[in-house]
Amino acid sequence: MKYYFSKTISKAFDDTVKLITDGLKDEGFGVICEIRMHEKLKEKFEIDFRKYTLLEACNPAFALKALQMEDKVGTMLPCNLMVIDQGDGMTEVAAINPVASMQSIANPELYDVVHKISQTLRSIVEHI
Amino acid sequence: MKYYFSKTISKAFDDTVKLITDGLKDEGFGVICEIRMHEKLKEKFEIDFRKYTLLEACNPAFALKALQMEDKVGTMLPCNLMVIDQGDGMTEVAAINPVASMQSIANPELYDVVHKISQTLRSIVEHI
Repeated sequence: MKYYFSKTISKAFDDTVKLITDGLKDEGFGVICEIRMHEKLKEKFEIDFRKYTLLEACNPAFALKALQMEDKVGTMLPCNLMVIDQGDGMTEVAAINPVASMQSIANPELYDVVHKISQTLRSIVEHI
Repeated sequence: MKYYFSKTISKAFDDTVKLITDGLKDEGFGVICEIRMHEKLKEKFEIDFRKYTLLEACNPAFALKALQMEDKVGTMLPCNLMVIDQGDGMTEVAAINPVASMQSIANPELYDVVHKISQTLRSIVEHI
Protein backbone atom coordinates (compact mmCIF):
# COMPACT_ATOMS: atom_id res chain seq x y z
CA MET A 1 0.00 0.00 0.00
CA LYS A 2 1.37 3.40 -1.01
CA TYR A 3 1.88 5.75 1.94
CA TYR A 4 0.82 8.88 0.05
CA PHE A 5 -1.50 10.22 -2.65
CA SER A 6 -0.01 12.68 -5.13
CA LYS A 7 -0.72 14.72 -8.21
CA THR A 8 1.56 16.93 -10.30
CA ILE A 9 0.09 20.00 -12.00
CA SER A 10 1.43 22.81 -14.17
CA LYS A 11 0.83 25.64 -11.71
CA ALA A 12 3.19 27.94 -9.86
CA PHE A 13 4.30 26.82 -6.40
CA ASP A 14 2.57 29.55 -4.35
CA ASP A 15 -0.67 29.24 -6.35
CA THR A 16 -0.66 25.51 -5.63
CA VAL A 17 -0.22 26.09 -1.89
CA LYS A 18 -3.30 28.33 -2.01
CA LEU A 19 -5.31 25.86 -4.12
CA ILE A 20 -4.68 22.92 -1.82
CA THR A 21 -5.32 25.03 1.29
CA ASP A 22 -8.70 26.02 -0.20
CA GLY A 23 -9.43 22.38 -1.09
CA LEU A 24 -8.73 21.35 2.48
CA LYS A 25 -10.94 24.11 3.85
CA ASP A 26 -13.85 22.96 1.68
CA GLU A 27 -13.63 19.57 3.41
CA GLY A 28 -13.41 21.00 6.94
CA PHE A 29 -9.62 20.84 7.34
CA GLY A 30 -7.77 23.84 8.72
CA VAL A 31 -4.04 24.28 8.19
CA ILE A 32 -2.66 24.45 11.72
CA CYS A 33 0.96 24.86 10.79
CA GLU A 34 2.80 25.61 7.53
CA ILE A 35 6.49 24.66 7.44
CA ARG A 36 8.60 25.97 4.58
CA MET A 37 11.28 23.27 4.71
CA HIS A 38 13.44 24.91 2.02
CA GLU A 39 13.67 28.09 4.11
CA LYS A 40 14.51 26.16 7.30
CA LEU A 41 17.22 24.17 5.49
CA LYS A 42 18.67 27.34 3.93
CA GLU A 43 18.76 28.99 7.35
CA LYS A 44 20.39 25.98 9.07
CA PHE A 45 22.76 24.61 6.44
CA GLU A 46 23.03 27.32 3.77
CA ILE A 47 21.86 24.81 1.15
CA ASP A 48 19.46 25.40 -1.71
CA PHE A 49 16.70 22.83 -1.42
CA ARG A 50 13.81 22.84 -3.89
CA LYS A 51 10.70 24.63 -2.63
CA TYR A 52 9.05 22.18 -0.26
CA THR A 53 6.23 23.24 2.03
CA LEU A 54 4.50 21.06 4.61
CA LEU A 55 0.90 21.80 5.46
CA GLU A 56 -0.37 20.28 8.68
CA ALA A 57 -4.07 19.81 8.22
CA CYS A 58 -6.59 19.04 10.93
CA ASN A 59 -10.28 18.33 10.70
CA PRO A 60 -11.44 18.78 14.31
CA ALA A 61 -14.41 16.40 13.99
CA PHE A 62 -12.20 13.57 12.68
CA ALA A 63 -9.50 14.37 15.25
CA LEU A 64 -11.98 14.21 18.15
CA LYS A 65 -13.37 10.85 16.97
CA ALA A 66 -9.89 9.37 16.63
CA LEU A 67 -8.72 10.72 20.02
CA GLN A 68 -11.77 9.27 21.76
CA MET A 69 -10.96 5.83 20.32
CA GLU A 70 -7.17 5.82 20.72
CA ASP A 71 -5.43 7.89 23.39
CA LYS A 72 -2.03 8.06 21.62
CA VAL A 73 -3.31 8.69 18.10
CA GLY A 74 -1.97 12.23 18.52
CA THR A 75 1.41 10.81 17.48
CA MET A 76 -0.09 10.63 13.97
CA LEU A 77 -1.96 13.97 13.97
CA PRO A 78 -2.39 16.31 12.17
CA CYS A 79 -2.40 14.93 8.61
CA ASN A 80 0.48 16.16 6.48
CA LEU A 81 0.32 17.42 2.93
CA MET A 82 3.24 18.66 0.94
CA VAL A 83 3.70 21.02 -1.97
CA ILE A 84 6.93 20.35 -3.85
CA ASP A 85 8.49 22.34 -6.68
CA GLN A 86 9.42 19.64 -9.21
CA GLY A 87 10.94 22.13 -11.72
CA ASP A 88 9.95 23.13 -15.28
CA GLY A 89 6.83 24.89 -13.96
CA MET A 90 5.47 21.69 -12.45
CA THR A 91 4.33 21.45 -8.83
CA GLU A 92 3.49 18.27 -6.97
CA VAL A 93 0.98 17.93 -4.17
CA ALA A 94 1.12 14.89 -1.91
CA ALA A 95 -0.95 13.88 1.10
CA ILE A 96 -0.33 11.16 3.60
CA ASN A 97 -2.40 8.00 3.33
CA PRO A 98 -3.27 7.49 7.00
CA VAL A 99 -4.40 3.90 6.34
CA ALA A 100 -0.75 3.13 5.57
CA SER A 101 0.90 5.21 8.29
CA MET A 102 -1.51 4.03 10.99
CA GLN A 103 -1.27 0.32 10.25
CA SER A 104 0.98 -0.05 13.30
CA ILE A 105 -1.97 0.96 15.53
CA ALA A 106 -3.73 -2.27 16.41
CA ASN A 107 -7.17 -0.82 17.10
CA PRO A 108 -9.99 -1.99 14.79
CA GLU A 109 -12.32 0.73 16.14
CA LEU A 110 -10.27 3.30 14.24
CA TYR A 111 -10.86 1.57 10.88
CA ASP A 112 -13.89 3.58 9.74
CA VAL A 113 -12.64 7.05 10.67
CA VAL A 114 -9.14 6.44 9.28
CA HIS A 115 -10.55 5.15 5.98
CA LYS A 116 -12.86 8.15 5.75
CA ILE A 117 -9.94 10.56 6.32
CA SER A 118 -7.88 8.68 3.75
CA GLN A 119 -10.63 8.88 1.10
CA THR A 120 -11.15 12.57 1.81
CA LEU A 121 -7.44 13.41 1.45
CA ARG A 122 -7.18 11.38 -1.76
CA SER A 123 -10.17 13.19 -3.21
CA ILE A 124 -8.78 16.63 -2.27
CA VAL A 125 -5.48 15.81 -4.04
CA GLU A 126 -7.23 14.31 -7.09
CA HIS A 127 -9.47 17.36 -7.52
CA ILE A 128 -6.84 20.04 -7.24
CA MET B 1 6.00 -3.20 17.44
CA LYS B 2 4.56 -0.42 19.59
CA TYR B 3 3.99 2.83 17.69
CA TYR B 4 5.02 5.08 20.59
CA PHE B 5 7.31 5.38 23.61
CA SER B 6 5.78 6.75 26.79
CA LYS B 7 6.44 7.54 30.40
CA THR B 8 4.14 8.80 33.14
CA ILE B 9 5.55 11.07 35.84
CA SER B 10 4.20 12.89 38.88
CA LYS B 11 4.74 16.42 37.61
CA ALA B 12 2.34 19.19 36.71
CA PHE B 13 1.24 19.39 33.07
CA ASP B 14 2.90 22.71 32.15
CA ASP B 15 6.15 21.74 33.91
CA THR B 16 6.21 18.52 31.89
CA VAL B 17 5.76 20.42 28.62
CA LYS B 18 8.79 22.50 29.56
CA LEU B 19 10.85 19.47 30.64
CA ILE B 20 10.26 17.56 27.43
CA THR B 21 10.86 20.67 25.30
CA ASP B 22 14.22 21.11 27.05
CA GLY B 23 15.03 17.41 26.57
CA LEU B 24 14.33 17.73 22.85
CA LYS B 25 16.49 20.84 22.61
CA ASP B 26 19.43 19.03 24.21
CA GLU B 27 19.25 16.49 21.36
CA GLY B 28 19.00 19.11 18.59
CA PHE B 29 15.20 19.03 18.15
CA GLY B 30 13.32 22.30 17.94
CA VAL B 31 9.57 22.45 18.58
CA ILE B 32 8.17 23.88 15.36
CA CYS B 33 4.55 23.85 16.37
CA GLU B 34 2.71 23.33 19.66
CA ILE B 35 -0.96 22.36 19.39
CA ARG B 36 -3.08 22.50 22.53
CA MET B 37 -5.72 20.00 21.41
CA HIS B 38 -7.90 20.51 24.50
CA GLU B 39 -8.18 24.22 23.70
CA LYS B 40 -9.01 23.57 20.04
CA LEU B 41 -11.67 21.00 21.00
CA LYS B 42 -13.17 23.37 23.59
CA GLU B 43 -13.29 26.14 20.99
CA LYS B 44 -14.89 23.94 18.30
CA PHE B 45 -17.21 21.66 20.25
CA GLU B 46 -17.52 23.22 23.72
CA ILE B 47 -16.31 19.96 25.26
CA ASP B 48 -13.92 19.51 28.15
CA PHE B 49 -11.11 17.26 26.95
CA ARG B 50 -8.21 16.41 29.27
CA LYS B 51 -5.13 18.60 28.74
CA TYR B 52 -3.44 17.20 25.65
CA THR B 53 -0.65 19.08 23.91
CA LEU B 54 1.10 18.01 20.72
CA LEU B 55 4.70 19.07 20.22
CA GLU B 56 5.97 18.83 16.67
CA ALA B 57 9.69 18.29 16.95
CA CYS B 58 12.20 18.60 14.15
CA ASN B 59 15.91 17.91 14.13
CA PRO B 60 17.03 19.67 10.93
CA ALA B 61 20.05 17.39 10.37
CA PHE B 62 17.91 14.24 10.56
CA ALA B 63 15.19 15.87 8.43
CA LEU B 64 17.65 16.81 5.69
CA LYS B 65 19.09 13.28 5.56
CA ALA B 66 15.66 11.72 5.33
CA LEU B 67 14.44 14.18 2.66
CA GLN B 68 17.51 13.52 0.54
CA MET B 69 16.77 9.78 0.61
CA GLU B 70 12.98 9.84 0.24
CA ASP B 71 11.19 12.71 -1.49
CA LYS B 72 7.80 12.16 0.18
CA VAL B 73 9.07 11.50 3.70
CA GLY B 74 7.67 14.94 4.57
CA THR B 75 4.33 13.19 5.03
CA MET B 76 5.84 11.77 8.25
CA LEU B 77 7.66 14.91 9.47
CA PRO B 78 8.06 16.46 12.00
CA CYS B 79 8.10 13.86 14.82
CA ASN B 80 5.20 14.18 17.23
CA LEU B 81 5.35 14.08 20.99
CA MET B 82 2.41 14.46 23.29
CA VAL B 83 1.92 15.59 26.85
CA ILE B 84 -1.30 14.23 28.34
CA ASP B 85 -2.88 15.03 31.70
CA GLN B 86 -3.76 11.61 33.09
CA GLY B 87 -5.31 12.98 36.29
CA ASP B 88 -4.33 12.64 39.98
CA GLY B 89 -1.24 14.80 39.41
CA MET B 90 0.16 12.38 36.84
CA THR B 91 1.30 13.51 33.40
CA GLU B 92 2.19 11.23 30.51
CA VAL B 93 4.70 11.98 27.79
CA ALA B 94 4.62 9.96 24.59
CA ALA B 95 6.70 10.15 21.41
CA ILE B 96 6.10 8.50 18.10
CA ASN B 97 8.23 5.49 17.22
CA PRO B 98 9.11 6.36 13.61
CA VAL B 99 10.30 2.80 12.93
CA ALA B 100 6.66 1.74 13.36
CA SER B 101 4.97 4.63 11.57
CA MET B 102 7.40 4.57 8.63
CA GLN B 103 7.22 0.84 7.98
CA SER B 104 4.98 1.55 5.00
CA ILE B 105 7.90 3.35 3.29
CA ALA B 106 9.71 0.69 1.29
CA ASN B 107 13.12 2.37 1.22
CA PRO B 108 15.96 0.48 2.94
CA GLU B 109 18.25 3.54 2.67
CA LEU B 110 16.15 5.20 5.39
CA TYR B 111 16.78 2.40 7.88
CA ASP B 112 19.79 3.92 9.69
CA VAL B 113 18.48 7.45 10.08
CA VAL B 114 14.99 6.31 11.13
CA HIS B 115 16.43 3.93 13.73
CA LYS B 116 18.69 6.70 15.06
CA ILE B 117 15.71 9.10 15.39
CA SER B 118 13.70 6.38 17.09
CA GLN B 119 16.45 5.64 19.64
CA THR B 120 16.91 9.36 20.33
CA LEU B 121 13.19 9.95 20.94
CA ARG B 122 12.98 6.89 23.19
CA SER B 123 15.94 8.11 25.23
CA ILE B 124 14.48 11.62 25.60
CA VAL B 125 11.21 10.16 26.92
CA GLU B 126 12.98 7.69 29.25
CA HIS B 127 15.18 10.42 30.75
CA ILE B 128 12.49 12.99 31.46
